[in-house]
Amino acid sequence: MNITEKILSKKAGHEVVPGEIIEIDVDLAMSHDGTSPPAIKTFEKIADKVWDSEKIAIVFDHNIPANTIGSAEFQKVCRDFIKEQGISKNYIHGEGICHQVLPEMGLVEPGKVIVGADSHTCTYGAFGAFSTGMGATDLAMVYATGKNWFMVPEANKMEVIGDADEYIAPKDIILNIIGDMGIAGATYQTAEFCGEVIENMGVEGRATMCNMAIEMGAKNGIMEPNSDVINYVCKRTGKTESQLDIVKSDKDTPYKRELTYDITDMEPQIACPNDVDNVKDISKVEGTAIDQCLIGSCTNGRLSDLKDAYEILKGKEINNDVRLLILPASKEIYKQAMDLGYIETFLDAGAIICNPGCGPCLGGHMGVLSEGEVCISTTNRNFKGRMGDPKSQVYLSNAKVVAASAIEGVITHPKDL
Amino acid sequence: MNITEKILSKKAGHEVVPGEIIEIDVDLAMSHDGTSPPAIKTFEKIADKVWDSEKIAIVFDHNIPANTIGSAEFQKVCRDFIKEQGISKNYIHGEGICHQVLPEMGLVEPGKVIVGADSHTCTYGAFGAFSTGMGATDLAMVYATGKNWFMVPEANKMEVIGDADEYIAPKDIILNIIGDMGIAGATYQTAEFCGEVIENMGVEGRATMCNMAIEMGAKNGIMEPNSDVINYVCKRTGKTESQLDIVKSDKDTPYKRELTYDITDMEPQIACPNDVDNVKDISKVEGTAIDQCLIGSCTNGRLSDLKDAYEILKGKEINNDVRLLILPASKEIYKQAMDLGYIETFLDAGAIICNPGCGPCLGGHMGVLSEGEVCISTTNRNFKGRMGDPKSQVYLSNAKVVAASAIEGVITHPKDL
Repeated sequence: MNITEKILSKKAGHEVVPGEIIEIDVDLAMSHDGTSPPAIKTFEKIADKVWDSEKIAIVFDHNIPANTIGSAEFQKVCRDFIKEQGISKNYIHGEGICHQVLPEMGLVEPGKVIVGADSHTCTYGAFGAFSTGMGATDLAMVYATGKNWFMVPEANKMEVIGDADEYIAPKDIILNIIGDMGIAGATYQTAEFCGEVIENMGVEGRATMCNMAIEMGAKNGIMEPNSDVINYVCKRTGKTESQLDIVKSDKDTPYKRELTYDITDMEPQIACPNDVDNVKDISKVEGTAIDQCLIGSCTNGRLSDLKDAYEILKGKEINNDVRLLILPASKEIYKQAMDLGYIETFLDAGAIICNPGCGPCLGGHMGVLSEGEVCISTTNRNFKGRMGDPKSQVYLSNAKVVAASAIEGVITHPKDL
Repeated sequence: MNITEKILSKKAGHEVVPGEIIEIDVDLAMSHDGTSPPAIKTFEKIADKVWDSEKIAIVFDHNIPANTIGSAEFQKVCRDFIKEQGISKNYIHGEGICHQVLPEMGLVEPGKVIVGADSHTCTYGAFGAFSTGMGATDLAMVYATGKNWFMVPEANKMEVIGDADEYIAPKDIILNIIGDMGIAGATYQTAEFCGEVIENMGVEGRATMCNMAIEMGAKNGIMEPNSDVINYVCKRTGKTESQLDIVKSDKDTPYKRELTYDITDMEPQIACPNDVDNVKDISKVEGTAIDQCLIGSCTNGRLSDLKDAYEILKGKEINNDVRLLILPASKEIYKQAMDLGYIETFLDAGAIICNPGCGPCLGGHMGVLSEGEVCISTTNRNFKGRMGDPKSQVYLSNAKVVAASAIEGVITHPKDL
């Protein structure tokens, strides 16, 4: 069996097979300020008390601070629910984006089943957990019962091998895979990432890759925990390695597909408007004029991304015709970036540092695009109108490319600075 | 003559008298991302080129980063105008709030005439300038001609004397004066602040007081420059004291009214909903439950305000039932607050640090209030619906009171912590 099947089998109490429908207990359920209110509304029709107030996490990240009367009302609904239900795992004071905050708070472990009313909940596969996004009203049932049904997914084995240069980040690898698979290429399937590159990849890069599994339709992205993951989780949970449920795939287990991606000689990858699978080598789009540059999100707002941006931006100034927005993914990362001098460098370069949160990724606030404007961004989606006007456009890339493009005012390979 | 009359007389080329209508040259005209587009629209009907591209400043502060497609479009209009007209004094990358950025950039000097399409343009009276707000379409005429008409205002002399305790800030003094005068008590008049307290007051406190002159209807607030102001302006402009046009009122000059405010034994002053002149001693409103606490704005987002907040918040945590938003008034202040450890302290206390700008002061974004919510804020206006829902409420105070209230979750005198 593969990792996902093993996790689901343990929960189901028997050996599951792909296509089987199971109902299992979840270990953690998460919602944010955008999805909690509809979940709460449905919950209140079916139950009075949540199944376990210690297994629910509520994070304010989508519109924080509240950008409209409506989002302020949504947050009030959440606060009332948190108090009524005694939900202690609430992160409502700008702690950051849910998918960064939950691991930081020690709520994510290998072998766990985690669901969340946010499509990028698949991020926690980076830690060897089975995690997936779901609708807010479906989550209401989890809040009431602690259970959810799943169809056991078929799995793709995606082996990543080779050596890339310093301009290639995990973001490029996952964009390359999505470009190959297509946006529906892994629908309701597992994307299990493995191979030498994944084995040697740090926690943050792993989170970037699993985060975007949904962009090829995958039910979940997942990786065998490596020592970086184990050290991270032990530090955050206070557990020892032996207390963790580290699950690995059997060597001879069959997969729906076995794919190999060699990153040797890879160019930085750019997902061009208006689909995440419209992926091109940077050499095909260099020189494209841009208006806004964005570094942040649950995909690429982590310290390693900010370090990448720092290395490009130190001593430089951005082009006056573009704006550069930087949003650390969490308060912890923001503080680390301050201590390391990154924030000061960003400010000196002409960037605006916004408070940790989802910010402009979904076009809600803090960097909405007007008609005809173009953004290059480290975020995960470039659908039509994603960041504002339907006639605006979003290109997706790694943080170094965004930083280099901010300096030049056009899409730029950092090697050309 | 008083300071204002002397400045206007010099510009008019003769000795002006109150009530006289004059047309004079302005030294600087300012607009921001909210008011530039209507000014530009009108300007384009009457002229092709601005009168002097070096005497116009455009600042993005009201909705930065853009919070809607509409505000993004407004900013695009501004950027196009800046390029077309060659306006070098553009501060469009999050430099901060116009009324803080202009002095920082050395654009404000004693004796100058400064107009701006923002009601709080009266702030620059702190530096001994005649400055006043005007409508965006009126400003279009200034952009075209460099001239504006004014009726010479009658003047009130407001002497501030006495010794107050450590909990009293310049904000309390101006709130006390506004409470006495009423919101229309000085309509189209000069509020000339003087006396021992003003003579010994630093640049930042002076800016707080002149900033709020408009809240009693005043055409302008003004003060004789003291050594702090002179040092500040010399540092920012590169000029020597002898190169500045330091204007002082004649000792025996008559005023419409001469008022004396003794701040000895003053309590912190709170402007209660829904008018700035509904000012009460804090003892009358202590214990009022609040939802949001805000430190920032062109009134009280300066380093001295952040220092006040820091002293209250260090080693403390805010009440989980309230949120605390802190917006440094400029990027320079933000960097200073980082260097001094204030930002880290604020984050540790549970605050959200937003990028410099006007933020939630006017209910546009970054902390909008929902129905029934209550905010205590260092900003300058508490009108019905100012920060969001018409049924929300805003109390105005100094930064220490806001910080103390954030810790307790109710309006709190900092001495009671």
